[in-house]
Amino acid sequence: MTTTIPETGLALHSLVTEDGVLELSLVDVAVPEPKANQVVIRVEAAPINPSDLGLLLAGADLSTATVAGSADRPVVTASIAKSAMRALTARVGTSLPVGNEGAGTVVAAGTSPEAQALLGRTVSVAGGAMYSQFRCVDVALCLVLPEGTPAKVGASAFVNPLTALGMVETMRREGRTALVHTAAASNLGQMLVRLCAEEQVPLVNIVRKPEQEALLRSLGAVHVCDSSSPTFMRDLIAALTETSATLAFDAIGGGTLASQILTCMEVAAAASATGEYSRYGSTTHKRVYIYGGLDRGPTELTRSFGFAWDIGGWLLTPFLQSLEPEKFQRLRSRVADGLESTFASSYTKEVSLSAALQPDAFSVYSLQATGEKFLIAPHH
Amino acid sequence: MTTTIPETGLALHSLVTEDGVLELSLVDVAVPEPKANQVVIRVEAAPINPSDLGLLLAGADLSTATVAGSADRPVVTASIAKSAMRALTARVGTSLPVGNEGAGTVVAAGTSPEAQALLGRTVSVAGGAMYSQFRCVDVALCLVLPEGTPAKVGASAFVNPLTALGMVETMRREGRTALVHTAAASNLGQMLVRLCAEEQVPLVNIVRKPEQEALLRSLGAVHVCDSSSPTFMRDLIAALTETSATLAFDAIGGGTLASQILTCMEVAAAASATGEYSRYGSTTHKRVYIYGGLDRGPTELTRSFGFAWDIGGWLLTPFLQSLEPEKFQRLRSRVADGLESTFASSYTKEVSLSAALQPDAFSVYSLQATGEKFLIAPHH
Repeated sequence: MTTTIPETGLALHSLVTEDGVLELSLVDVAVPEPKANQVVIRVEAAPINPSDLGLLLAGADLSTATVAGSADRPVVTASIAKSAMRALTARVGTSLPVGNEGAGTVVAAGTSPEAQALLGRTVSVAGGAMYSQFRCVDVALCLVLPEGTPAKVGASAFVNPLTALGMVETMRREGRTALVHTAAASNLGQMLVRLCAEEQVPLVNIVRKPEQEALLRSLGAVHVCDSSSPTFMRDLIAALTETSATLAFDAIGGGTLASQILTCMEVAAAASATGEYSRYGSTTHKRVYIYGGLDRGPTELTRSFGFAWDIGGWLLTPFLQSLEPEKFQRLRSRVADGLESTFASSYTKEVSLSAALQPDAFSVYSLQATGEKFLIAPHH
Repeated sequence: MTTTIPETGLALHSLVTEDGVLELSLVDVAVPEPKANQVVIRVEAAPINPSDLGLLLAGADLSTATVAGSADRPVVTASIAKSAMRALTARVGTSLPVGNEGAGTVVAAGTSPEAQALLGRTVSVAGGAMYSQFRCVDVALCLVLPEGTPAKVGASAFVNPLTALGMVETMRREGRTALVHTAAASNLGQMLVRLCAEEQVPLVNIVRKPEQEALLRSLGAVHVCDSSSPTFMRDLIAALTETSATLAFDAIGGGTLASQILTCMEVAAAASATGEYSRYGSTTHKRVYIYGGLDRGPTELTRSFGFAWDIGGWLLTPFLQSLEPEKFQRLRSRVADGLESTFASSYTKEVSLSAALQPDAFSVYSLQATGEKFLIAPHH
């Protein structure tokens, strides 16, 4: 270990107490000596993704959130509804580090040649606990960025890029040829627009505001439907008829949008079907994967779309586990090559670990508004 | 053709008019001369299954139903909500015969030896248009019943028995080992209790009333959970923990039951899981197939069951089409052998074609109350 590494570093932790309180705080964590095949990363940039918020916020009622502690060591508390506590049993009383992914500089390395080779390099990692000043991980977890790439460019090299690639790959595996995506103006949505253009996959983008439609059209998106428009259902049917999309990835989860998508897919399928009336709807199989929960309310399905449909959860990790190792490596390399183009991310704000727990930041990113994307810089 | 066959027979038809009116009536239909490989069946018994009601009732608002016409030729009319008409476009203006299955005597046969061999035999058919006095079908569609079997015994030889067998087969295909079934006191539910006992498949039965629980327990059902009980969720979690059931077949569709089942499956899975807390829920994949729509209201999913889940439509016909022909034949034979035991049906009322359209019958079977099962006897 070099002398630039302190014995401890700060890390953002989330704790659920037995009496139903969420507590977010900064804790001092020892920086471990790396084992032979490990490296210590000085984390310089870690995004706050929607997929981080489940662990971070534990479904707490954020209208009850208060901040105490000092400016350097703020402590956020909020209460958790009794009904939400059942699903949290396994984490009660355990202070958990947060942050799925991030990037930084390798400042210490174990004795193996593989570990030593990374000294001084910028690497991206999806190792969990990335809202930390220092993180010790196995070499195999590191995605080495091209020389000179700033950590900020590599901060979001896993979750969004691999999710976008996973959507296209899932579509192909299922023998489908086009995609629907909701909350499509997000960082991930913009990435998917670029990726689908490259891959020549027809993509129907669903957004919630006219300005989001304008943004996506400026990126070259062909099919953009605004769910706030009075002509939304008609627009969506037209786009689905044109693209023959029968698979949607939905980041919203709650409300009626998934049901509306299935209904419009069914209308598009019935319109193109020939033959006699079927009392059970079309034979075209329609599917929606829910991969996020921007709306935590219930999903409401009218089932006005026959019987050839399903809706289910989709998660990145099991998808990645289903890939052959070589395929996974190809996807990772593709991301590394495209971090400043296809897979580029943008952030609206950079905050330090302590600033991330202050009300002005906390109240913004916890809302999960499309267009608001925070980056944590743990050493600021 | 023998002289006992009239030139026409009555058939129950369902019509949706352009201005959104459902019209049910009896029409005179010519009895066709059978082709070489066809037979004419004098239909003696045809059940009113929940799966018939979609075509029969077309989602009409039954509170508006009125009966006109004569006692012999009643005409039921009811209005259809505008929102429901979109899905009906393909059938507007076409008078459609109804009745998925039934049984009767072969009274005329084509010239082929196969057709001639059936003369005088009782056969079951799932050929559609079975609420008819006479039905001309291909020999291949006929399930020949053991000599002396009354038509009434063979009336329900397809939909319920093959659905019960299909549930067990689907479970096995997916590598699962136990089942959950809702509306479990139905004729189909009782069949499934007997079938699962024979096959040694653990079955969790969900009913809506204490008397239905008593009925199923009297049949030997081991796990019965009453959704009207204040301890329902706790009971269901206990049954799911004991059986490790991760697959449910739901006949109800609307409301929160499917979501409750997934939630309880997740609690059962989390309780038996070892290892660290996962923010995304258990890795146990939980599935609900909706195969009916006793509650036509929206399905409400709270998504309090992680990401390893899905819910979708399940239909008998595509399942049967997915079977190898030999397998399908084996299932059919098994049903024929078990029509008075495993696959026996019971009916609360027998009605003629005209009586089926009278308010006292119509208002009962259209409600789809569990325990009410009607049989149409077209020659009464």
